Amino acid sequence: MKGLWLENQTLSLRDDLPQPQPAQGEALVKVLQAGICNTDLELLRGYYPYCGIPGHEFVGVVVQGPESLLQKRVVGEINAACGHCRYCLQGMPTHCENRTVLGIVNRSGAFAEYLTLPVQNLHPVPDNVSTDAATFTEPIAAALEIQEQVKITPKEKVLVVGDGKLGQLIAQTLALTGCELWVLGRHRDKLAKLSDRGIQTGLIEDLPNPKFDIAVECTGNPEGLAIALDHLRPRGILVLKSTYAGRVNLDMSSIVVNEITLIGSRCGPFLPALELLANHQIHVSSLIAEKYPLAEGLAAFAQAQQKGALKILLAMS
Amino acid sequence: MKGLWLENQTLSLRDDLPQPQPAQGEALVKVLQAGICNTDLELLRGYYPYCGIPGHEFVGVVVQGPESLLQKRVVGEINAACGHCRYCLQGMPTHCENRTVLGIVNRSGAFAEYLTLPVQNLHPVPDNVSTDAATFTEPIAAALEIQEQVKITPKEKVLVVGDGKLGQLIAQTLALTGCELWVLGRHRDKLAKLSDRGIQTGLIEDLPNPKFDIAVECTGNPEGLAIALDHLRPRGILVLKSTYAGRVNLDMSSIVVNEITLIGSRCGPFLPALELLANHQIHVSSLIAEKYPLAEGLAAFAQAQQKGALKILLAMS
Repeated sequence: MKGLWLENQTLSLRDDLPQPQPAQGEALVKVLQAGICNTDLELLRGYYPYCGIPGHEFVGVVVQGPESLLQKRVVGEINAACGHCRYCLQGMPTHCENRTVLGIVNRSGAFAEYLTLPVQNLHPVPDNVSTDAATFTEPIAAALEIQEQVKITPKEKVLVVGDGKLGQLIAQTLALTGCELWVLGRHRDKLAKLSDRGIQTGLIEDLPNPKFDIAVECTGNPEGLAIALDHLRPRGILVLKSTYAGRVNLDMSSIVVNEITLIGSRCGPFLPALELLANHQIHVSSLIAEKYPLAEGLAAFAQAQQKGALKILLAMS
Repeated sequence: MKGLWLENQTLSLRDDLPQPQPAQGEALVKVLQAGICNTDLELLRGYYPYCGIPGHEFVGVVVQGPESLLQKRVVGEINAACGHCRYCLQGMPTHCENRTVLGIVNRSGAFAEYLTLPVQNLHPVPDNVSTDAATFTEPIAAALEIQEQVKITPKEKVLVVGDGKLGQLIAQTLALTGCELWVLGRHRDKLAKLSDRGIQTGLIEDLPNPKFDIAVECTGNPEGLAIALDHLRPRGILVLKSTYAGRVNLDMSSIVVNEITLIGSRCGPFLPALELLANHQIHVSSLIAEKYPLAEGLAAFAQAQQKGALKILLAMS
């Protein structure tokens, strides 16, 4: 089959890839469309030594699997859990110690004509959610993970640092809580997409120094972390959403003295994400920069790697 | 009066220091004894640009103040709060934005004959608690702050990284929760003090790789942080108790992928600390390395700076 292949931090377009075979309990999914995520770009930079087909944000159609899903449009949770390790048994399947992760760890990803996933990972896409919109289910779920970890109510002052793809979705999900929200970024055009929706925004250099109860770092770079930390009140909470290669340099004593809490945050719940899309509570169409056919996958990645690029989609057929 | 003076990272013994004058609502305390803390050593190394008398762990006698405290032995909370800033009004006086901190920020400390503190910061020492033991009230309170921030029950597996002065007190306070406790250190003699009390201990190089729910970092160096992080399960909690000059280099992506929570932890509640001492639930006598008179304060600091030194006390008269 056709697909993109990542090996030694080099991406290639191939048409000789073996079609993945669904194991017991898995479905075969014909991919309709997939989105390029910053994690994909980080994999290219060597964030994790993955060799194989990347891609984990997708919409597809089940072509082999249980009748209830057959020929249905689906999205899929990316962590395939073993179901019997200590973390699975403790209700943390996304942290399964034997997990494979679609397009990231030991499982062929979505930038190809077909993929496989456990049936339980798949969720039908409501009819009123377009394939374009549904491609954002995975990052919206990741945005919602923040609210699984930290209680956010209208009482909280929340700062989102980063106006990129993920920051936009995080800001939209947080706005729904009624919290006092500010988004800080470096791009007037991106911030405008949020202020158009009534969200308060500011350029990083313009923000005065109010203190926030909660800050969410989603810039993908260490400077964002320092800015978020700077704007937190004592005993504030800093949610870390960016995964990137390399290490950051942190002033630990300010974390101790101010008794700051840092929380790493990764994958989140798919059903509420689909519900938000179905209810038109999250708007994604303005976040799509371009759609490429799979055959132009390398050009798609080239555009996605440009600084400030919004979402690049790959259509498989 | 006599006292130790810190200026430009240099400590001197002086006998020309002005006796501090209690402001309204403050008491004048004649210091009986004080303990040298790692924070004092860090101040010497430039962790914070403090110029003045250092020292914040003390027992003294009130010589000027309300009748209820006069001539009583007292210990004192080190943060003097304004009572009207946004953090005071939110019940976080230790994070008061106008605070002075005994021997650390804009307030003459305990390595001298006299100090002043707000009356509300002072707590009488129960008669059955020796002055030696009561000198440990402040670090025991700091150890108890962990339990103010993180719920620790017999179900949790907890790792303390660091067998020094603070690690010893933290381990003893955590052992009282009934949690499954391990202390990891580099000093057989110090670990023996804990194993004598029935606490499981191990040398850092010997520990296999079990995963803990909670880890407490109190080594005072960045390596301790890496070790603590290494031994946490996904969604585990890392409590940071060390304050030290300089920055640490952290693998943020492992914090995000494993959804780790880091919590900075500083000053804690004095009354429960005094209660533990009064009930003989915390044992401190074996943690005293040496007691010096104030006149030998520089020698006391020299010993405290030796690697692995336990608690050095200064007796003021």
